[in-house]
Amino acid sequence: MNQDRVVATYLLETPHPLEHAAAVLAGEQSSGTFVAVPGETLQLKERFGARVESIKPLESVAAPSLPGSKAPKSAGARTEYRRGEAVISFPLHNFGPSIPSLLATVAGNLYELQELSGVRLLDLELPRAFATRYPGPGFGIEGTRKLAQVAGRPLIGTIIKPSIGLSIEQLRPLVRELAQAGLDFIKDDELNADPPYAPLAERVPAAMDEIQRVADSTGKKTMYAFNISGDIEHMLRGHDLVKKHGGTCVMVNINNVGFAALTYLRQRCELSIHGHRNNFGAMARHPLLGMSFTAYQKLCRLAGVDHLHVGGMSGKFYESNEEVARSILDCLRPMYGDYRVMPVISSAQWAGSAMEIYAATKSVDVVHLAGGGIIAHADGTAAGVRSMQQGWEAALAGVPLDDFAASHPELRAAIDKFGKRSS
Amino acid sequence: MNQDRVVATYLLETPHPLEHAAAVLAGEQSSGTFVAVPGETLQLKERFGARVESIKPLESVAAPSLPGSKAPKSAGARTEYRRGEAVISFPLHNFGPSIPSLLATVAGNLYELQELSGVRLLDLELPRAFATRYPGPGFGIEGTRKLAQVAGRPLIGTIIKPSIGLSIEQLRPLVRELAQAGLDFIKDDELNADPPYAPLAERVPAAMDEIQRVADSTGKKTMYAFNISGDIEHMLRGHDLVKKHGGTCVMVNINNVGFAALTYLRQRCELSIHGHRNNFGAMARHPLLGMSFTAYQKLCRLAGVDHLHVGGMSGKFYESNEEVARSILDCLRPMYGDYRVMPVISSAQWAGSAMEIYAATKSVDVVHLAGGGIIAHADGTAAGVRSMQQGWEAALAGVPLDDFAASHPELRAAIDKFGKRSS
Repeated sequence: MNQDRVVATYLLETPHPLEHAAAVLAGEQSSGTFVAVPGETLQLKERFGARVESIKPLESVAAPSLPGSKAPKSAGARTEYRRGEAVISFPLHNFGPSIPSLLATVAGNLYELQELSGVRLLDLELPRAFATRYPGPGFGIEGTRKLAQVAGRPLIGTIIKPSIGLSIEQLRPLVRELAQAGLDFIKDDELNADPPYAPLAERVPAAMDEIQRVADSTGKKTMYAFNISGDIEHMLRGHDLVKKHGGTCVMVNINNVGFAALTYLRQRCELSIHGHRNNFGAMARHPLLGMSFTAYQKLCRLAGVDHLHVGGMSGKFYESNEEVARSILDCLRPMYGDYRVMPVISSAQWAGSAMEIYAATKSVDVVHLAGGGIIAHADGTAAGVRSMQQGWEAALAGVPLDDFAASHPELRAAIDKFGKRSS
Repeated sequence: MNQDRVVATYLLETPHPLEHAAAVLAGEQSSGTFVAVPGETLQLKERFGARVESIKPLESVAAPSLPGSKAPKSAGARTEYRRGEAVISFPLHNFGPSIPSLLATVAGNLYELQELSGVRLLDLELPRAFATRYPGPGFGIEGTRKLAQVAGRPLIGTIIKPSIGLSIEQLRPLVRELAQAGLDFIKDDELNADPPYAPLAERVPAAMDEIQRVADSTGKKTMYAFNISGDIEHMLRGHDLVKKHGGTCVMVNINNVGFAALTYLRQRCELSIHGHRNNFGAMARHPLLGMSFTAYQKLCRLAGVDHLHVGGMSGKFYESNEEVARSILDCLRPMYGDYRVMPVISSAQWAGSAMEIYAATKSVDVVHLAGGGIIAHADGTAAGVRSMQQGWEAALAGVPLDDFAASHPELRAAIDKFGKRSS
């Protein structure tokens, strides 16, 4: 890996020759402006200019994917929009190992360029200097497994539902029931941070009291990811509160607070960080715009999350199962030799989803969340938890779901209620 | 204005009936999950549910704008994608006046929904509780004018170019020349934050030394927006450094650091904040995805920027002049009776751009930046500054550019060099 340059791979679409479009992007994001200026010497360009390393032409299309591109006059009436992958490298000494400055460089004004009718950051290679500056996940996969006391299988978890509206009095019995059912993991919904009707200052002690009582009798302490997302001081107070009450995890809506806030929290954090990616679709759903998850997850890992949401197999969101599987594998790939985060699979999950996840990834290093898929199980929450465990047992044993369900009634009931959806 | 609910307007596209799509969005972003769960009572839904206030149907299209939507089976082979504007309101007591929690609610997982093939947040109405929590711009238009000693006309400014690569020794004479030329405003490029070759710790004292020397003799102190973007502690150090050396403005790449970091800085900031929106295109360039500038600028103002970039007339970016004009007017519209920010117009600007800006907005409450358009003027930087001033004089006097140029040689030279581009 190049230790002096950041290497970014883009998917481009352009009415210009691909070489020209890539050169404009490289110029705009390093030393250039729209006309040559005094001081922009050859030596300066050589030392500070971004470099187009390679271009792989792909298909051409008849219509632009994004509005606002301008074709060269020579293109005439029948403009073609050429697509290609361009690898562009930026000297690290232009900005130094800083996530905000990196973003301005590889994901800044380039999205606005008229020379492009499509531009998406596909991947990033980051010099080791970033690893020196940013410590990455504080707990990662192994640390999370230790905190949650789970080995050899996924962490099975749920999201408190209804997402919002539960009073502290309603939350207590629900948490108690989930912990008693042997659930590994509970999280707040991303919508539920510090609402006036059930503030964090009351939610944390109440939930941890229930969890601790169960732990005292069973020895197993369910991990609860409290949503501390908010302004900086709010997050630090939230962290201290969770720590004080014996919690092991805090949850952060990464895009809602921003990378600088996440970094700041990580530097002061003694608990595992559960990273929610809500809003990611806004920068990723159009295939010719924004940023791929492959690039995004590297930034999240650098900034220090231990768990990272990746969507769900056959869930309610737009990504295909192939994309979700790729995201899971992205998270599990080492970065700087480590920095691994646990992918968090959620969105309309249930016991049967285990089969799909394991078939596509062959990994158990995931947090598998079912909200309704546990809490709305026909025989209650404890049966919902058991059905999830059974789903994974079937997947790991390589036994078809229906066969395994013959001797596992909780799984059977889950198939009967939730299995229809995905067929 | 409703003081108990946040009102969000969306542009939707869906293979379902619009009413169904809007209801799914409202459910997903308040109390719902994919199945009914115990505890999701009618009373809870009534108190915490988001509400579809109105739907205005627009055109239908044959193909989905975004991938991953799923049509209902009843749609058959010839699915239609219906577009419409939906107004959805969210109870404030679901989350309280917090920008990160607001974002999770109005701009979170909704972008991922399969029921939608297009979703864009068009506008936001925010209860006054947000104004109590967030102080907004510390200086705004009037404060900025006082600091920069400019009345009755736009602030005319430039961006240090080349964007990156200038040593401190090269920066000094450039700043001196710009200040001596009577320029109101100078800013760092968004790419140039704290590079190892010219760190902020050296750039700030050097630039302010030059500016102060000129101010000592002319009485006019050019405002310099130093790019302090970076991790939180870096930004606070940068702010203190600029203040210590007599600077009046700091620049922040809003999207690269995130709203929580900007808020944190604002609470501690004694200088005006110049907000750069680089990366905005990633969330805004596709017309059926992300967020409009109208919604975005309200969040930026809440978080406390005094100046906000809006692109440029006939610039190098994708937006049309109509869109840029609308963005300028968005910024100038009072929010909570005030909270006005100065729109910053840049991207391939020159003296002639003044005419277009004034014709479309009838406002002089803007910062008008020309990088190459000043520094690359044929007769040098001072002539470049004068040409910009003359461009605005012509616009305000209602005199055609070429006529005014007959008696203003700097404007004439600017037209000769830069005027060809936009024709």
